[in-house]
Amino acid sequence: MAITVAVDCMGGDRGAAVTVPAALAALEDDADIGLILVGSSAAIEEELRRARAAPDNRLRVRGATETVAMDEPPATALRNKKDSSMRVAIDLVKDGAANACVSAGNTGALMAISRFVLKTLPGIDRPAIASILPTQTGQTCMLDLGANVDCSAEHLLQFGIMGSELFAALERKERPSVGLLNVGEEEIKGNEVVKQAAELLRGSGLNFHGNVEGDDIYKGTTDVVVCDGFVGNVALKASEGVAQMLAGHLRAEFERTFLNRLAALAASPVIRSFKRRFDHRRYNGATLLGLRGIVVKSHGSADAFAFGCAIRRAAEEARGAVLAHISERLTSIEKNVA
Amino acid sequence: MAITVAVDCMGGDRGAAVTVPAALAALEDDADIGLILVGSSAAIEEELRRARAAPDNRLRVRGATETVAMDEPPATALRNKKDSSMRVAIDLVKDGAANACVSAGNTGALMAISRFVLKTLPGIDRPAIASILPTQTGQTCMLDLGANVDCSAEHLLQFGIMGSELFAALERKERPSVGLLNVGEEEIKGNEVVKQAAELLRGSGLNFHGNVEGDDIYKGTTDVVVCDGFVGNVALKASEGVAQMLAGHLRAEFERTFLNRLAALAASPVIRSFKRRFDHRRYNGATLLGLRGIVVKSHGSADAFAFGCAIRRAAEEARGAVLAHISERLTSIEKNVA
Repeated sequence: MAITVAVDCMGGDRGAAVTVPAALAALEDDADIGLILVGSSAAIEEELRRARAAPDNRLRVRGATETVAMDEPPATALRNKKDSSMRVAIDLVKDGAANACVSAGNTGALMAISRFVLKTLPGIDRPAIASILPTQTGQTCMLDLGANVDCSAEHLLQFGIMGSELFAALERKERPSVGLLNVGEEEIKGNEVVKQAAELLRGSGLNFHGNVEGDDIYKGTTDVVVCDGFVGNVALKASEGVAQMLAGHLRAEFERTFLNRLAALAASPVIRSFKRRFDHRRYNGATLLGLRGIVVKSHGSADAFAFGCAIRRAAEEARGAVLAHISERLTSIEKNVA
Repeated sequence: MAITVAVDCMGGDRGAAVTVPAALAALEDDADIGLILVGSSAAIEEELRRARAAPDNRLRVRGATETVAMDEPPATALRNKKDSSMRVAIDLVKDGAANACVSAGNTGALMAISRFVLKTLPGIDRPAIASILPTQTGQTCMLDLGANVDCSAEHLLQFGIMGSELFAALERKERPSVGLLNVGEEEIKGNEVVKQAAELLRGSGLNFHGNVEGDDIYKGTTDVVVCDGFVGNVALKASEGVAQMLAGHLRAEFERTFLNRLAALAASPVIRSFKRRFDHRRYNGATLLGLRGIVVKSHGSADAFAFGCAIRRAAEEARGAVLAHISERLTSIEKNVA
C-alpha cells in the first residue's frame, strides 16, 4: 500500500527552501510514498524549478494562502488561519487524502489545530509528544516531552500504551518493554501520581519493566520511557544541553593549538563515527501521539536532511498502522477491566 | 578562624580505605582546617598507620561502634544506630564540636538523621539537596536534586534563597542570578506551582532571572537553578546518562582499530583536558541545605580524590557562613512581607 504524506512546506525557520528539497529526496529514497506539498504555490513551484523537478502522480502541490508564524499564539492560529499550510495539511489527513502530515511549524499551534481538527482517539484524554532517542544499545521511545505539564496516573498509562505501540511499529518489535521514569527503582519511590501509574501499568498487560531513572533513558534499559510532559521536556533539554557542552568543549580543544589541530585530523574517523551515531538530525521528528491521525513535528531549525527524516518517520508510522494498534490495545484493556 | 569538619569514615562503598587517605590529603591542602575522623577506631588507626600518620591537634579520632549500611532503611538507621559513625558525625555538628560533617553513606539515612538531630532552619520547611554542576561558562548550583518529590511554590522560593546564598558563599559572588526550571521561558508556561513560584521569586528581592529551560543549566544562563526534587533528580541523572553514553562511544571508537588507537595517542592532550574539565569527581559533594548545620553527602562510590573534594566543599560552606546568610535573608524577606 502506498502511503501519502502531506507536507507543510511553509513551517520552520527556512520554509520551502528546506522542506521542498527534503520532500524530493524522500520521494527518491522511498518508491512507496507519495507526497502532497502544501503552502504558497509560488514558493513551492520556485523550489521545484530550482531542483528541476515537477509535480507528477507521486508529487502533488496543494496551494494554501496563509502561514502560521513561529511565534503566533496557538489560539490565534487556530481561529484565524483557516487556509494556512499547517491547517490544510492537517485537513488532508482528516479527509483521508493523506495518511500522515509533517510540519516544522510552531509546536503549540500544531498541537492546537491537530486536536481541534482530528480529535483524540477513543480512550485517550490528551495527546502526548513522543520522540525516539539514541541509547547505548539502540534507541528508546520517550513520552510525553512537553504537551502535558500536569498528568494523572491514567494519562501516564495511556502514554505507556501509545509509546509501546509506536515503538512496536517503528522498530518492528513485539511487546516492547515500558519503564516509568522515577527518582529510584524501588516501588516506594516517587510521588503519588507515579506510584498509582505504576500500579495501572502493572495491570495493563503491557510489558511493564517497573521504575527507571534518568540515566536509564540512555542506557537503553527499556524500549519505552513514560513520564509527564514537564519532567520529559526538562530531561530532554538538559540532555541536549550536556551534549552541546561536551561537544563544544571538544571542538574548542581540538582547535586550540596547532598540535591539537593535527590530532583532530588523525582522529577524524573517530569524530565522524561519533557524529554519525549521535547526529540529532537523524532523530528529528516528534510524533503528536493520541490523535485520530498521524502528525509529526520537525524541529523548526531542521535542515533538508533532518526534515527528510521527519517525513520518513511519518510514512513509517502510517505503514505500521500505529493508530489502529493503539485503538486495539485500548479496547482489549477496557474489556479486561470490564 | 579554623574550621573543623567531622568525617564519617565508615560510609561509602569502601569506607576507611577511601575516607582516611582523603582526610589526610585535605589536611595537607588546607592548613586552616581540622578534622575529626569518626568510625571504627581500629579501621581508622589501621589506615593512619598505613599512611604513616598519627592523630594530632588537627586530626582527631572519635570512635563509633556502628555503621549504617548502604541499603539500610532510613527509619531503622535513625531508630537503632545511635552510635553509628554517621550519627556521631552529625551529633558533633549539633554539639558545636564540628562546623560541618561529610558522609558517603546512604542518602536517605543521612537526610533522616540530619533532620532529626539538627532540625531545619527557621523559615525552612524542608531541606533540599544542592549540587554544583559544570557549565559552558563556569558552574551553576542546582537544587532540589531529589529530597522532595512534591513541592509547593513556597518550597521552591526557599530553595531559591538557599541556593543563592550557597552559590554566593562558594563562588564569592554577590547577588547570584536565580532561574526557575520550566518547560519554556515565557511566563505563561508551566504548571500552577511553577507559575506561583515565579511570582514569589519575583517579589523576593533575589536576583531572579525568570524561567530557564533544561539546556540553560549547562549553558550557565543563571548561577542557581531551582526545581522540585523529582524534576531535578531526573534531569541530573539523564545528564549523567548522556555524558556516559557519549564518553563510552568515544572510548570504544578510539580503541576500535589500530589507527584509531594511534589517533587517541595524538589526541591525548585534548582527551586529558576534557577529562579534567568534566571530571565528575571534582563536583562530588551534594549539600543537604536548610538544616541547622552543614551536612555534605559524597557519592558512595567516591575515590579518595572525590571524597577530598566533598571535605573541601564542607569546609568552604562553613567558612562562607552559608547558614547565617540564609537565616539573614529569610528574616529580611519576612520583614518585607510583614
